[in-house]
Amino acid sequence: INYFLSKPRFTQVLASTRKLHAGADGSKVSPSAAPERLPFCRVTEEDLAFFRKILAGRTIVDPDLVEPSNVDWLKSVRGSSEVLLRPQTTEEVSQILSYCNSRNLAVNPQGGNTGLVGGSVPVYDEIILSTSLMNKILNFDSISGVLTCQAGCVLENLSFYLEERDYIMPLDLGAKGSCQIGGNVATNAGGLRLLRYGSLHGTVLGLELVLADGQVLDCLSTLRKDNTGYDLKQLFIGSEGTLGVITAVSILCPRKPKSVNVVFLGCETFEQLLKTFQLCKSMLGEILSAFEFLDSECMRLLNTHLKLPNPISDCPFYIVIETSGSDPTHDAQKLHNFLEEAMTSSLVSDGTVATEEAKIKALWSLRERVTEALTHDGFTYKYDISLPVERIYQLVTDMRKHLGNRAKSVVGYGHVGDGNLHLNVTSPSKDPALLAAIEPFVYEWTASCRGSISAEHGLGLKKRNYIYYSKQSQAVALMGNIKAMLDPKGILNPYKTLPDNLKQ
Amino acid sequence: INYFLSKPRFTQVLASTRKLHAGADGSKVSPSAAPERLPFCRVTEEDLAFFRKILAGRTIVDPDLVEPSNVDWLKSVRGSSEVLLRPQTTEEVSQILSYCNSRNLAVNPQGGNTGLVGGSVPVYDEIILSTSLMNKILNFDSISGVLTCQAGCVLENLSFYLEERDYIMPLDLGAKGSCQIGGNVATNAGGLRLLRYGSLHGTVLGLELVLADGQVLDCLSTLRKDNTGYDLKQLFIGSEGTLGVITAVSILCPRKPKSVNVVFLGCETFEQLLKTFQLCKSMLGEILSAFEFLDSECMRLLNTHLKLPNPISDCPFYIVIETSGSDPTHDAQKLHNFLEEAMTSSLVSDGTVATEEAKIKALWSLRERVTEALTHDGFTYKYDISLPVERIYQLVTDMRKHLGNRAKSVVGYGHVGDGNLHLNVTSPSKDPALLAAIEPFVYEWTASCRGSISAEHGLGLKKRNYIYYSKQSQAVALMGNIKAMLDPKGILNPYKTLPDNLKQ
Repeated sequence: INYFLSKPRFTQVLASTRKLHAGADGSKVSPSAAPERLPFCRVTEEDLAFFRKILAGRTIVDPDLVEPSNVDWLKSVRGSSEVLLRPQTTEEVSQILSYCNSRNLAVNPQGGNTGLVGGSVPVYDEIILSTSLMNKILNFDSISGVLTCQAGCVLENLSFYLEERDYIMPLDLGAKGSCQIGGNVATNAGGLRLLRYGSLHGTVLGLELVLADGQVLDCLSTLRKDNTGYDLKQLFIGSEGTLGVITAVSILCPRKPKSVNVVFLGCETFEQLLKTFQLCKSMLGEILSAFEFLDSECMRLLNTHLKLPNPISDCPFYIVIETSGSDPTHDAQKLHNFLEEAMTSSLVSDGTVATEEAKIKALWSLRERVTEALTHDGFTYKYDISLPVERIYQLVTDMRKHLGNRAKSVVGYGHVGDGNLHLNVTSPSKDPALLAAIEPFVYEWTASCRGSISAEHGLGLKKRNYIYYSKQSQAVALMGNIKAMLDPKGILNPYKTLPDNLKQ
Repeated sequence: INYFLSKPRFTQVLASTRKLHAGADGSKVSPSAAPERLPFCRVTEEDLAFFRKILAGRTIVDPDLVEPSNVDWLKSVRGSSEVLLRPQTTEEVSQILSYCNSRNLAVNPQGGNTGLVGGSVPVYDEIILSTSLMNKILNFDSISGVLTCQAGCVLENLSFYLEERDYIMPLDLGAKGSCQIGGNVATNAGGLRLLRYGSLHGTVLGLELVLADGQVLDCLSTLRKDNTGYDLKQLFIGSEGTLGVITAVSILCPRKPKSVNVVFLGCETFEQLLKTFQLCKSMLGEILSAFEFLDSECMRLLNTHLKLPNPISDCPFYIVIETSGSDPTHDAQKLHNFLEEAMTSSLVSDGTVATEEAKIKALWSLRERVTEALTHDGFTYKYDISLPVERIYQLVTDMRKHLGNRAKSVVGYGHVGDGNLHLNVTSPSKDPALLAAIEPFVYEWTASCRGSISAEHGLGLKKRNYIYYSKQSQAVALMGNIKAMLDPKGILNPYKTLPDNLKQ
């Protein structure tokens, strides 16, 4: 997947006084539209002089160079920052934040800028603090499997590093070529291996953070167990850069499996798909490492926009199952037994198995490149929903009925094993009427099942005001208290994660 | 293991004005000794009348009935509470805390009272709020494996319930017959399955809590993924009842393995034991579910005090390995291959394998009953240390050298797979001079390796002032801010977890 952003040439405007954000279309203002700019100070020549002193050659003000950091990967939101800072050390991050806090300058921490909810770019003129140059691996302990590295290490680079040492990262996601481990932790990224290795709340052993006032918080433990006081680092996992800037991470890495198999299967109904999931959990047991799905609409988009052919016969639903184990013979036997049972009981109607690297990648790309295929289908309204697993596809069906022919495509795919649906609706261009038909319908539907309106993408700018669909108001108020305690001036990633109506 | 506490008859004293705690022996006051009583109000007849109104028949004031809740399982610390409250519902807990907070009455939340650091009993006259009657299972979803229950459910009862439904709890520990899931979560209990299923920070999906002011915080999600705002529940996992009272828990449970094997092995040196661990991780891979050790001194105590015979020949070190998998034939083959390699390469000198339930239990009891054997050996100084795995036994050796003949026994056992050593030193009776030789030596040694001075037991009363050996002072200060935010009057489990010198 190519995450390179083709840089649009556009006339510079006084963007810091305008709203260029999703939903801010003049008519009825969407709750996802940016709020008014808060009264932070604006960057002066004196400020730039300070930054240049501590970050010589790494204080970027050339608009052409700052621009890619102002726009998100989806090109759905755009900030108007005029300063991009590229620190290399924790000490530099500390100096930057200490200064910005005292000057009341807002800061947008940025990793690989692959987020999907507008959390990774400035909303107005926030200073962009990029972790891209903080890309050193600090330590790897080959006995315990604990990796310690700076926050700006690209996920895929860490994977390559570990694979040479017979380990793997406990997380994997489509954006791996660009996303950074610090951003992964800040957004509590889920991805393709969560089913097997669990969430970052379990695998992250330590964090080093810089708080809003520049204070360095050293929670960079490399121990599997540590019950000395409150587990502070947990607060920052998934806080989307609003409570502190992650500068280093230590993470527990699993052994590289000796045998990996991928199966691509077709099912006639979603009920059969769920039964296949149950059978799979029972028969593949401890070697099951992923159970993903896509619907026939996703396949159509992959065929049409990316020219990826369907490796099996046409079906309403497709499953990607991955096994990872320590014994190729045992794994092959387990897989064979499972497939035989699934075929003879008519749960699946067609399928193909891959054991070699190239075919494994090809099958995985059918699942991983759906996001990319969607970007070619038109303007995409993206939803990332957690539901009880038996309900996840019903939302897609209901949404199709609800929208009728108002949408171009309504597609569903995601992580069945985690109860996580990616629901996407496309239209030829941005369409406020369509949006009004989708929202709040999708959120109300989700809330009625006690689901989550953001399973793994976070809230960022776009979803912040929908938090109450999944969280009790007392809980949100407590989040506000925590924010006020750790960042009293609110300089860290303002307008993100917490709702506008929060009184602090 | 019988966790029944033989109730000592003792003359009632005005204990609320005296110090009866570990280390408070009049001479040089140990940092683990209780601080002065804080100026909380004392329980009046009006207060009792209020409690009796909301908890008719469940407001206990008979000293004989309150006594077992005043003393910890080790009989090492004793409080002097005169009131034991036994709520059945979250609403009752809310009413109790709302009242106590407004009246400035201190509260000691108590689960199964099996803690080892003096965190589970009152220090002075705190009202004991027991969760024992909150023992209802609220829901179990057999598709997702998510269990939701009240906080007072006993761990072993949950295990029995799940095993009938082909699932298991993701945690298991020696105290399972008495400990409660709420207490497990409040103390972030580790135990025997952490190696395989990870910590409670990963497996707990939701919590319901009552805050100090009586407010109910509903974070009782049953979703595997939910990135809507900060993950508040994480703050309470391991907070030892100082930030809120856990009233309900939802937790992700693994499938019950179809095949379980336990191996008991002997090694000549700790280096061989570590090599066996590496071999084991590589050859058993995904079916490895525990790798525990005990030394020959532990075996001696098991023989002497519990009459448990050694099932193999005498060795300096013993290993308990457990495998759990979905295919008995595959598991047996993997285990066979591993044992053959371990024997032929002379890593292990003797061993025995168990596949039947009864023998599995017998082998496990050698590891699980070391704690109990120690209680018969004399007064026990207990340490629960996390270290880089290659250093864990060096601390035992160094401590033996350091103490010479001042200690009766110095034993080491624990969770090799998690880098977690249980170091125990016994003496015929309480011995301040011995204590002074052990501490701060053990803490300084641990800090020099960036270890944790409490891997899984928590800090409670006894270890609270040692927190700085494992945590940076800024981190401890932030913990204090969180405590002050959530419990401004400090009524919840006072004198625990946070150090005395903390300025709030």
